[in-house]
Amino acid sequence: MAAWARAVRGLLLDISGVLYDSGGEGGGVPIPGSAEAVRRIKASGLKLRFCTNEAQATREKFVKKLQGLGFDISVDEVTAPAPAACRLLKERGLRPHLLVHDDLVPEFADIDKTNPNCVVIGDAAENFSYANLNEAFRVLIGLEKPVLISLGKGRYYKETDGLKLDVGAYMKALEYACDVQAEVVGKPAKAFFESALAEMGVPPEQAIMIGDDIVSDVGGAQQCGMRGVQVRTGKYRQISPPSDAL
Amino acid sequence: MAAWARAVRGLLLDISGVLYDSGGEGGGVPIPGSAEAVRRIKASGLKLRFCTNEAQATREKFVKKLQGLGFDISVDEVTAPAPAACRLLKERGLRPHLLVHDDLVPEFADIDKTNPNCVVIGDAAENFSYANLNEAFRVLIGLEKPVLISLGKGRYYKETDGLKLDVGAYMKALEYACDVQAEVVGKPAKAFFESALAEMGVPPEQAIMIGDDIVSDVGGAQQCGMRGVQVRTGKYRQISPPSDAL
Repeated sequence: MAAWARAVRGLLLDISGVLYDSGGEGGGVPIPGSAEAVRRIKASGLKLRFCTNEAQATREKFVKKLQGLGFDISVDEVTAPAPAACRLLKERGLRPHLLVHDDLVPEFADIDKTNPNCVVIGDAAENFSYANLNEAFRVLIGLEKPVLISLGKGRYYKETDGLKLDVGAYMKALEYACDVQAEVVGKPAKAFFESALAEMGVPPEQAIMIGDDIVSDVGGAQQCGMRGVQVRTGKYRQISPPSDAL
Repeated sequence: MAAWARAVRGLLLDISGVLYDSGGEGGGVPIPGSAEAVRRIKASGLKLRFCTNEAQATREKFVKKLQGLGFDISVDEVTAPAPAACRLLKERGLRPHLLVHDDLVPEFADIDKTNPNCVVIGDAAENFSYANLNEAFRVLIGLEKPVLISLGKGRYYKETDGLKLDVGAYMKALEYACDVQAEVVGKPAKAFFESALAEMGVPPEQAIMIGDDIVSDVGGAQQCGMRGVQVRTGKYRQISPPSDAL
């Protein structure tokens, strides 16, 4: 065993594409062996934290689904972008127009949303309609200083019925239309990983991030001083990585 | 009158935002004075050609609407991106998956669309649904060598009920998701302006392009050796232009 491996004290685990593939009737299908792997990690004494860009549900609802799929996971073990976005909104006095999944809206319950002065975009799935995109665009371009906050910047992910465009694609559409650059909350933002590490109480050089996204998971972790491991489940495809991925 | 102005022999006219604002019940509202301006240009002896990125209808249907709004215009005076895309598809043996407006589909009637080996995206309006975007994305990312052809790359345009995202925004979403660069057919592609000039029989230095889009109309024309004039109707807004606009 290499010296660096012996020094590892904590793991950050991505969820979608690593523990399960989302979609379908039960909300998803566990990836074989993953529930057992979580149990073994916890039994090993390693610290463990779930680090996800999940933005289709509140953490409460999301965790409940995962428990139902057989995972040993609780809400206070999860680092997710919506709470990070709420902290940022409050700090800067920003009032968001939300373009997010219906089930994520409760995370923003105590945020003032009147007379918006920014747009928050998340993986809105079916809410990514022509009408909703135009509405978010009009809010954004109508601002004297457009502020676009994006919950992650993933290109796509895998659901049980196939690949789906992720929030990053729609973020790029709004960036282009309004000539702005989004502020990304969630992976691969450095502050997001740092927050997850702090909650786990492990420094980056003693932690490993495990995910299926070469940019958001592996690249983000490396920029933070962690090692990143890419699993071959989820969106993993045996092709050369995109040019800006490494 | 300046020497260059005396040398002008032909005008290229953008349509949406210059002659009329699209949308609403009658399909649009003429911009005051524009129908009279077309008549005066034609009476003056100047050559005139309509150079549009319109992709929500066949040229036949589009021209019929404009005639109904009082414009002196015929199909053979219009340069539009769909016919240019069809020429390109045939030249290169490409079979498109179409993400376009229903009313544009007839322009691709004699194009083989079985077993697609490229995606053609146009201003699909209501067809820019979550499901349709995912479908186009899956076709594109499933290709060994993804080819994305975009009918224009406009950021947005003005309809009677407000600003709408244009094809360029959705093009960027697919570009990002698949790590490809779209080939743009239509303004501001140089080949598109050259084709319009050839059909008019006027060299670029004796022509003026008149439009409301600083990138697609004015920038594209200038790159082609023409002068470009930006009208203050349509999407024109009194703000500084986006950083890549000039």
